[in-house]
Formats: sequence, structure tokens, C-alpha cells
Amino acid sequence: AQLALEKDYETHRDYETRYRVIMEASRDALVLVDVASGRIVDLNAAAAQVLGADADTLTGSAFTQEFDGRKRGEFIEGLVLSASDDTSGPVPVKTRRGKLDVAIHPIVFRAAGDKSLLCRIETAKSAESVAAELS
Amino acid sequence: AQLALEKDYETHRDYETRYRVIMEASRDALVLVDVASGRIVDLNAAAAQVLGADADTLTGSAFTQEFDGRKRGEFIEGLVLSASDDTSGPVPVKTRRGKLDVAIHPIVFRAAGDKSLLCRIETAKSAESVAAELS
Repeated sequence: AQLALEKDYETHRDYETRYRVIMEASRDALVLVDVASGRIVDLNAAAAQVLGADADTLTGSAFTQEFDGRKRGEFIEGLVLSASDDTSGPVPVKTRRGKLDVAIHPIVFRAAGDKSLLCRIETAKSAESVAAELS
Repeated sequence: AQLALEKDYETHRDYETRYRVIMEASRDALVLVDVASGRIVDLNAAAAQVLGADADTLTGSAFTQEFDGRKRGEFIEGLVLSASDDTSGPVPVKTRRGKLDVAIHPIVFRAAGDKSLLCRIETAKSAESVAAELS
């Protein structure tokens, strides 16, 4: 059992590396949020840039605080509801530090028993918006 | 030690889930390739669509085979070199199944001792290209 566990352990180390490589390779701004605490678990460089602070400063801080005029309980709950509802669009917000108008695309999932949100933050001037305007 | 290993194990299960969520949430076409064998280790739905086959069919198959007129050894080696060289641009290729002109953006990394490539495949008509043409 010990050996099997160690083999599994190595496989999972592998997933940690893959996870980190994909996070940093992503051109999307990605933030992982723990639903119960509302805190930022992890984010990539693109997301730190959109939110206007260092990734180290943002990790562990309250996600809600990064946006203007939002209250924690209803904001996080709203993201979870939006993630669970296929018909709802992205959630529009303004960043607190840089006053940027952005849209949050949330996905809800469970990891190690805890409910988590993966939030993709789209800025108004992203390539996607430019392409949408052209079509 | 057993307990510590089990706790780590749980943390790493968490990374596996995060990895899978981000792969599928990504709008980028992403393919993981094992450098030694040249085979596709994993890919997301966006990449399967670009390559023109089911993800199940593609997983475990030779990455080089998916492109026209490429020989395995030099193709994979070329991607590794391109990934290691900041001055080199993406690698242009044509998909074998759909005859699409695409560009591969490779990143090289090590996971569990094996050298791997994360390849982002960009189609000519992606939003990024549209935005680049406008600027």
C-alpha cells in the first residue's frame, strides 16, 4: 500500500507541475477562489496584472475586496449561481485598484472536498471583444 | 511519514482536479506531448477540434502524425528548441486531417523526470490574429 501510494504521489506531483505550467502559459486572467472563505487561493500573472497588484499580495486576500461596491456574501454566492446557470452571462464588475471594467466568467468545482471557483476575468478591450465587434 | 504522505497525497489530488478544470476552461487549444516518445499525453476539447478528431482517439497517438509533411525526430526536437529560444516565433504547420494552417507555441518543462511540451495551437482566424491585424 505504501508503494502504491508513493507511485500515486509521483503521478500527482506531475499534475501539480502541469497545473502550474498551464496557469502561467494561459493568456487568460485566471483566479482560483475558495467559496467558503471567499479568499484567493491562486492566480496567474495575467490576473495579477488585471487586478493591479502583485500575485503574492493578492494570494490569500479576499476576492470581493478587489472590486468596487461589492459585498462578500452576495458577490461570491452570485458567482456560484452564475457558474451553475448555463443561461447566465458573465458577471460585470469594476476593479478597485485600477477602475477597469471587466467581466468575470466563473466555473464552480470541488477539490479535496471544498467548493472552489475558477474565475476567468475578461477586460473590455480583450481580443475576444474586438473579434466580437467585427462579426 | 505515512500520514504526511497521505496529506500530501490529498493536496496533489487537488492539483489534478485544478489541472483538469483549467484545461477544459481554456479557450486556447492545448496539447501535452511527451518529448521522449513524441506521443500526446493529454489535450483539451479545443485542441481536439483544431486537430479534427476525438480527444480519446488522439490521446496516446504520435503528435507529429497530426501535421502534414513532418518527420518525428526533427519536428519534436524543433519544438523543444523553439521553446528554449526566446527569440524564435511560433512553429507554422498544417493539420493533416483538416488541412488547417496553424501555429504551435511550445513551452518545455519537466514533470516526474520526463521532459514534456505544452503546445498551444493557434488557428489563423483566432481572435488574437484579428486583433493583431487591426493594430
